[in-house]
Amino acid sequence: MYSPAIRKILKAKGIKAGDRISVRKKGKTVEGLLMPKTGFSDPDSVVVKLDNGYNIGIRHEKGTLISRSKKKEPGEILEEEKFEMGKIRKSLLKVKFDPKKPKVTLLSVGGTISSRVDYRTGGVYALETPQELLHNIPELADIVNLKMRSPFTKMSEDMDHEDWQELAKHVARELNSGKKGVIITHGTDTLHYTAAALSFFLGNLSKPVVLVGSQRSSDRGSSDAGMNLICASHVATGKIAEVGTCMHGSTNDDYCHFIRGTKVRKMHTSRRDAFRPINESPLTRVWPDGKTEVMNRNHRTRGEGKVEVDARFEPRVALIKVYPGSDPDMIEYYVKKGYRGFVLEVPGLGHAPTKVARKPWTEIIKKYTEKGITFVCAPQTIYGRINPNVYTNLRLLYHDAGAIPGEDMLPETAYVKLGWVLGHTRDPKKVREMMLTNYAGEITRRTEMDTFSDEGLNE
Amino acid sequence: MYSPAIRKILKAKGIKAGDRISVRKKGKTVEGLLMPKTGFSDPDSVVVKLDNGYNIGIRHEKGTLISRSKKKEPGEILEEEKFEMGKIRKSLLKVKFDPKKPKVTLLSVGGTISSRVDYRTGGVYALETPQELLHNIPELADIVNLKMRSPFTKMSEDMDHEDWQELAKHVARELNSGKKGVIITHGTDTLHYTAAALSFFLGNLSKPVVLVGSQRSSDRGSSDAGMNLICASHVATGKIAEVGTCMHGSTNDDYCHFIRGTKVRKMHTSRRDAFRPINESPLTRVWPDGKTEVMNRNHRTRGEGKVEVDARFEPRVALIKVYPGSDPDMIEYYVKKGYRGFVLEVPGLGHAPTKVARKPWTEIIKKYTEKGITFVCAPQTIYGRINPNVYTNLRLLYHDAGAIPGEDMLPETAYVKLGWVLGHTRDPKKVREMMLTNYAGEITRRTEMDTFSDEGLNE
Repeated sequence: MYSPAIRKILKAKGIKAGDRISVRKKGKTVEGLLMPKTGFSDPDSVVVKLDNGYNIGIRHEKGTLISRSKKKEPGEILEEEKFEMGKIRKSLLKVKFDPKKPKVTLLSVGGTISSRVDYRTGGVYALETPQELLHNIPELADIVNLKMRSPFTKMSEDMDHEDWQELAKHVARELNSGKKGVIITHGTDTLHYTAAALSFFLGNLSKPVVLVGSQRSSDRGSSDAGMNLICASHVATGKIAEVGTCMHGSTNDDYCHFIRGTKVRKMHTSRRDAFRPINESPLTRVWPDGKTEVMNRNHRTRGEGKVEVDARFEPRVALIKVYPGSDPDMIEYYVKKGYRGFVLEVPGLGHAPTKVARKPWTEIIKKYTEKGITFVCAPQTIYGRINPNVYTNLRLLYHDAGAIPGEDMLPETAYVKLGWVLGHTRDPKKVREMMLTNYAGEITRRTEMDTFSDEGLNE
Repeated sequence: MYSPAIRKILKAKGIKAGDRISVRKKGKTVEGLLMPKTGFSDPDSVVVKLDNGYNIGIRHEKGTLISRSKKKEPGEILEEEKFEMGKIRKSLLKVKFDPKKPKVTLLSVGGTISSRVDYRTGGVYALETPQELLHNIPELADIVNLKMRSPFTKMSEDMDHEDWQELAKHVARELNSGKKGVIITHGTDTLHYTAAALSFFLGNLSKPVVLVGSQRSSDRGSSDAGMNLICASHVATGKIAEVGTCMHGSTNDDYCHFIRGTKVRKMHTSRRDAFRPINESPLTRVWPDGKTEVMNRNHRTRGEGKVEVDARFEPRVALIKVYPGSDPDMIEYYVKKGYRGFVLEVPGLGHAPTKVARKPWTEIIKKYTEKGITFVCAPQTIYGRINPNVYTNLRLLYHDAGAIPGEDMLPETAYVKLGWVLGHTRDPKKVREMMLTNYAGEITRRTEMDTFSDEGLNE
């Protein structure tokens, strides 16, 4: 139960738990739903559920003003707030970059890193200009001469291959016009799909392309946006000419990992160190002061050649999960719609239901492989490698039915690659050959066993 | 290049790289394809690719006999080999269990743990009797009085809900007839799906149900079968009455982890420590000598009640991956086939393409939710929790279109649960309520943040 002082105010204003309230204290306003007081928390603090889902407690002291909200719905912006937001924007114009520093282009395409939480409404807003992002990161001016452009703006869940193609063109244009490297700010949810796509789309890559997002928006105290961008600036001016992501390497603000675009996966919904390298080490560990430790010698170094875009992509490709009870007939549905290829995310060493009473996957795969459709299997375990040789069922799937064992490629990477390969050829033999050829580090011939260590273990 | 001595033999017998050979040394025979000599390996060792895909090198010494294989194809068993295999089987009959030890039933349903590699052919064979498994594990007799039964035998990729139902009945019958616990030996590829199914199917569980597999077959030096079974025997006679898996907790043969059946996932194709707890700690760490460390206090303890089976299951449920460019129309295909529910494995905090030129997922979900079909979203990141509140697109998906945010449930667990829930009710409100109710530890209200630590990092 709340303290008598708070209960008195609530009663006087007719406010009940669940009502939308606004709490003003020391010039700041927090807005959201009043939560009932539970458990052992401080009875003198009002608990408010922000519209972003987080609860905060505000200690009721002299001068704290609790009132019913004026807003009719979450996300509404009142006139007086617009004025305040305008003031913040004006202050951003002060960020000046040094023309003597290495030139780097930042392409801003959206996501949390281009958003901010309005603490008064709890809603998340896109920044109106990409420059707003730099408001709190004056250190960038010491590292790079940053030019910002925003070819388009999308939340990452809404992006697809046309956005990847558009982005590849912009990256190549920037790199071929004298920039030292390119940074892309992007939503995190599909950041690794875009990273894989650019890895295949950008040929003869001679400079770094660094994808950066943030798991917490840039105006939050715990935001990873600033450090990720600072480390990305070091990577973009560094020696390694690869497409990769640069995100927190731990939950402390100590270093970032630059991870190859074809070997990276978002492995946690919310943690700042959610991006992990799968089946290989990060390329580098980068500290905010520029210190860089090379962790993986398998990489290209900076060169001078012209970057080429080869972004042809067949979108009629699907990524399908195979599991106990899964229905292979759905392949027929896709084929009728004109689909040319499938990545199957299969259990274990690469299995699909084979000796089953209902229709086995192997039967459907064999039928359509013979008609020139491609099936590539990738590990549902995420970590590890498809091994087509160990068991009889595996022989049936790969040697008899004709599925392609996707080696240690991530399912997501295999999906992007299959679209790219089918954008280049429809000859099934050539498709097979290309799927098993390493173009952008997506296949490692030998897995470093210690790239899978202690996850999930509470030690 | 091989050493002159080896080259001379190969030349004399007309053997070339790629030929099927047999190498006999110290009474043992290895058979497979002769590999060309590459790299820095010992030129005095013959490298043979076994039919299981592994390469081994055999040092050529006095008495080593290299010859062309007599076999026409991989997996063929010669008459003389059958005799040797018979001898091994007879020795198994010697395993005797002590009737004074706690009674435990081992239900053997297949998988690698019930198989062995024939090193002479490289093929993998099912054991003819479950007893063969115990050949090398006399320690079991010191822990339990083991009764073995094999209700059916399948490789785990071929199992489905009918096998889970069958297995649940057998488990309940054994537990209700005075056994201290049940051990199930099972293929590893879908072990976690079966573990989740039994977690929901077995009501009023008062004793341990321990699922065990092995990543390497029981006759290999590096096999995990023995230690996993020994630790499982301790769990089956222990205090915790949960369904869970008992597999290696590290790559050393030091301890196993007993992991809750609804929170476990195979996270590596081949490593012995592939099974990981997701979003919580293992229930216990168990050493082969019986030492047990409780790691998670959230568990049921042993009781006396009768175990009940409630295994009704609606198989017309699908687990679908949502990704950039994914096609929501496929839902229509499934609905026409009579499907009642879908688990969507979605990126990030729980997104699906929303503001896209082609048909958005939210539109299809809304359309069919209104017709009584259920959509549950689970994290594609594997680790973490769906948060339906942070972004506008999330509000559209969960608040407007009516998808159910699957909290921190694994996609595979959510799939099994949805089939089980739809086996009990078709009322959409009741389905939603049940999907958001925690029945078997599948939903944790608060994630322990340190259950996701260093995976993928080479440290």
